Amino acid sequence: MFESVIEKIKNARKVAIFNHESPDGDALGSAYALKLIINALGKQAEVFLRPGDERTREYKLIKGTENSGLKIRDCDLKIAVDCADLERLGEMKEFFCGNTAAIDHHFTHAEFANSTLVVPDAPATGEIIFDVAEKLGVRIDKDIANNIYTAIICDTGNFKYSSTTPKTHMVAARLMEIGIDIASLSKQVFDTKSFGYFKAYKKGIDNLELFADGKIAVLSITEADFLELGVDEVLIDGIVDLPRSIEGVEVGVYIRERAEGFKVSLRSNGDTDVAEIALVFGGGGHKKAAGCLIKSSLKEAKQSLVQEVEKQLK
Amino acid sequence: MFESVIEKIKNARKVAIFNHESPDGDALGSAYALKLIINALGKQAEVFLRPGDERTREYKLIKGTENSGLKIRDCDLKIAVDCADLERLGEMKEFFCGNTAAIDHHFTHAEFANSTLVVPDAPATGEIIFDVAEKLGVRIDKDIANNIYTAIICDTGNFKYSSTTPKTHMVAARLMEIGIDIASLSKQVFDTKSFGYFKAYKKGIDNLELFADGKIAVLSITEADFLELGVDEVLIDGIVDLPRSIEGVEVGVYIRERAEGFKVSLRSNGDTDVAEIALVFGGGGHKKAAGCLIKSSLKEAKQSLVQEVEKQLK
Repeated sequence: MFESVIEKIKNARKVAIFNHESPDGDALGSAYALKLIINALGKQAEVFLRPGDERTREYKLIKGTENSGLKIRDCDLKIAVDCADLERLGEMKEFFCGNTAAIDHHFTHAEFANSTLVVPDAPATGEIIFDVAEKLGVRIDKDIANNIYTAIICDTGNFKYSSTTPKTHMVAARLMEIGIDIASLSKQVFDTKSFGYFKAYKKGIDNLELFADGKIAVLSITEADFLELGVDEVLIDGIVDLPRSIEGVEVGVYIRERAEGFKVSLRSNGDTDVAEIALVFGGGGHKKAAGCLIKSSLKEAKQSLVQEVEKQLK
Repeated sequence: MFESVIEKIKNARKVAIFNHESPDGDALGSAYALKLIINALGKQAEVFLRPGDERTREYKLIKGTENSGLKIRDCDLKIAVDCADLERLGEMKEFFCGNTAAIDHHFTHAEFANSTLVVPDAPATGEIIFDVAEKLGVRIDKDIANNIYTAIICDTGNFKYSSTTPKTHMVAARLMEIGIDIASLSKQVFDTKSFGYFKAYKKGIDNLELFADGKIAVLSITEADFLELGVDEVLIDGIVDLPRSIEGVEVGVYIRERAEGFKVSLRSNGDTDVAEIALVFGGGGHKKAAGCLIKSSLKEAKQSLVQEVEKQLK
């Protein structure tokens, strides 16, 4: 599985690395870890982000982001990391041609490169990059370890998600032995929020309502709320998990007003299949997480949602 | 180090297990894991909690809590787990006599048992219990794994604290291989809160103030707030970390009104030594976490605290 991508890296002289639009910690950590690994082989490599992609908290934690000056046109190998399909490359798509490879962990990966390395059991692409370093015979140094560790904790919620495997912990153990400040990294990724986040969070709690003896929790945020708060929705994206984090809640509903209607996210803690609920409103998703768009008043949207959830509650 | 305690367990017929007052996840998980390990040797064992100690969310996650009917007076070995000193046993102290052993990870452990096994490098007593099972030749089953894993995540903040070591991850990998629902355990420990918690949290955000260009954050909760909320302070204990989780904050201050005055908790994100600040007000603690009690009006308490923090800000 690894061979063809490993061979491509071994044979390349200059490597351009791409990741997906609005890159998360895994996309950033994996890309820059791979850059440093290729550098360790004595080859040039650079990560090519889209403008603005460096404006995230995770980016600040990543090592090796100093621009080497390498140009895409001079590269004889292009590697896409953490990208499930070509479209996810965004505007970088047009540069992804010639000799290409992809390293990814999405089980939905739609092959688009000449050589593909997909490990769907890996909870983060970072975990695959760890193996790539081993196969290339590269000694993982502190900077590489820092990037891989950041990638892994971002995509596993710091080893909380069910996608975490025994191997994930084995890799974490190895990375810690190399020497990384795990407390600082996890604090910066998970336990540091802007003042605006707390303001928005407070508004969210204000708007929280319980139904069906506390089994359904609904949190709604209107356009007016967003304006009043003066915060971006992106800022409070984690708020989607607030309703279902309340003790006793089976289904958590998060509704936010958008120009096109009320965007609804449904989360199930138990056996209730929220994809079926979303389907009723023309949406879809998985058993535990689904979504839909409702074009009506907020009151009506809430009412019909609660009614439908109550009907399907298990 | 392990020998004498292991020998005692091997030679015992019936074992009474104790842990500390208001037991946390590590104290509970370690005690019940040890009970099941001793059971696996064909010996009787029981954990003796104080009344009310079973009223925690963590207790509900622990396996093996069904009472076996074993009486303390019939036990020929008493083991204290996760207890740094005799006083921490609370009212169970009087039963801790005769043939005794202690298993603990506190580096401040004050020896009080006939045989002592202290591993200060272990971030949780649960990690030591894992080794105890190995030394006793007991195969760790799913229930024991569940208890040890719960113990470890509770005392490491799910592998976030700097006390976490490579070994902690190695143990987690082994426990996962046995088969435990890590996503469910971590969700129940960390991501499930009562509705009252959110109400109190909201009040906390309401009362949040920033000083010194956002480098100092102060959160105060008065007796009147507590009454209005109708929630116990215990419920919102995690709120102590809210002020310092704001981006840019160097020192977080949490003040709550008590009958005896304003209880102050200071937390440092950077190099500012909060123990020195607490000392000014007759308190004490560590560089990163300290506390004191101030007897004045809330306004004066806040003013003098902010003044002192500003002075010592690094």
